[in-house]
Amino acid sequence: MAESEELFLLDFKPSPFAARVKIALAEKGLRYESREEDLANKSPLLLETNPVYKLIPVLIHNGRPICESMIIVQYIDQVWNHKSPLLPSDPYRRADALFWADYVDKKIYFIGSTLCTSKGEAKEASRKDLIECFKILEGEIGDKPYFGGESFGYVDLIFIPFYSFFYAFETLGNFSMIEECPKIVDWAQRCLQKESVSKTLYDQLQFYDIVLGIRKRMGIK
Amino acid sequence: MAESEELFLLDFKPSPFAARVKIALAEKGLRYESREEDLANKSPLLLETNPVYKLIPVLIHNGRPICESMIIVQYIDQVWNHKSPLLPSDPYRRADALFWADYVDKKIYFIGSTLCTSKGEAKEASRKDLIECFKILEGEIGDKPYFGGESFGYVDLIFIPFYSFFYAFETLGNFSMIEECPKIVDWAQRCLQKESVSKTLYDQLQFYDIVLGIRKRMGIK
Repeated sequence: MAESEELFLLDFKPSPFAARVKIALAEKGLRYESREEDLANKSPLLLETNPVYKLIPVLIHNGRPICESMIIVQYIDQVWNHKSPLLPSDPYRRADALFWADYVDKKIYFIGSTLCTSKGEAKEASRKDLIECFKILEGEIGDKPYFGGESFGYVDLIFIPFYSFFYAFETLGNFSMIEECPKIVDWAQRCLQKESVSKTLYDQLQFYDIVLGIRKRMGIK
Repeated sequence: MAESEELFLLDFKPSPFAARVKIALAEKGLRYESREEDLANKSPLLLETNPVYKLIPVLIHNGRPICESMIIVQYIDQVWNHKSPLLPSDPYRRADALFWADYVDKKIYFIGSTLCTSKGEAKEASRKDLIECFKILEGEIGDKPYFGGESFGYVDLIFIPFYSFFYAFETLGNFSMIEECPKIVDWAQRCLQKESVSKTLYDQLQFYDIVLGIRKRMGIK
């Protein structure tokens, strides 16, 4: 990276979306500054750089903001394409990677959040949906080491931050990831061997504590 | 396109998502075959080529399926990049285009569908949300002829199929697009001057009839 390049991340440590950006920056060996946002009292910089959603992560590169985690990761991959390519250059393999990353993005957070903040029938339905999603992803990875094949890539990077949620999902959903989708557990362990991942991911028990706090505030037992 | 290349589209004429793919194929000057799907009785080919969502559009290129309209359009743009580039090559401008296309994709169909299939407070809330979205897009286009600048591009292509919904939105939401967001109306008229768009878009009154049929079946007055 040229001396004059400046990278600044508006971050929130438990966020899987911010984790994606941090893993991408680490994979590319980029140095950056970051600031933890107080989501209950968002900074003027966050409101100014992401006026549409007012959400982290925002990556500011030489004063220009990029929003939405998957778009930020694609931006990083395109600008710093000399090292650790994340998206394949072949159009069909690229479309396949975009498809599965989008699947993860549409499903896991939304269904997982419902599981974490519901009870009774809604909880049971989301538990079932979530296991079904993981099984679809289990079928997709099959016997490959990573989603894209032999090396860590875009889909792995988009999905792996949700590893921080696995304990909460299993505990609240009363299921075992290793029993339901052993290949996903193996894959996650493989990803965790990468320093870019292990140094970034939020602790599962700390995340579970956050969820319990939310459930308490919502009056859900 | 080489003689040996085969393009086959699983289509459904009223779908704005299928329209995106057809506009992209027309912009690139590509010949293709297509088949109208009966969504109440999906074909084995649709179930086989899009087993995850079982939704149109699916583009099958030399026997290999690509799913999800925005991913298909990106695929077409990458494979046939010699003519009518849709996404900018500059990383920042590309990220900006991906951001606005994603905004349209997340908001307009979902909120618009709620408006079209609700009544009372839910209808009023979705009417308000939809106008707010259009105003945000009005602010984004500003005085540019197209979202990306001087020429028709990715965001225009992703957004313009919703023009077919405008009459239904205005009639059911009791608002005027020209009063609320005149620049969006001007932009849509500009897009419609392109044959790729005008020959593809579904008729507004026919679409409104479909919506009225859905409302009737749902027992909504």
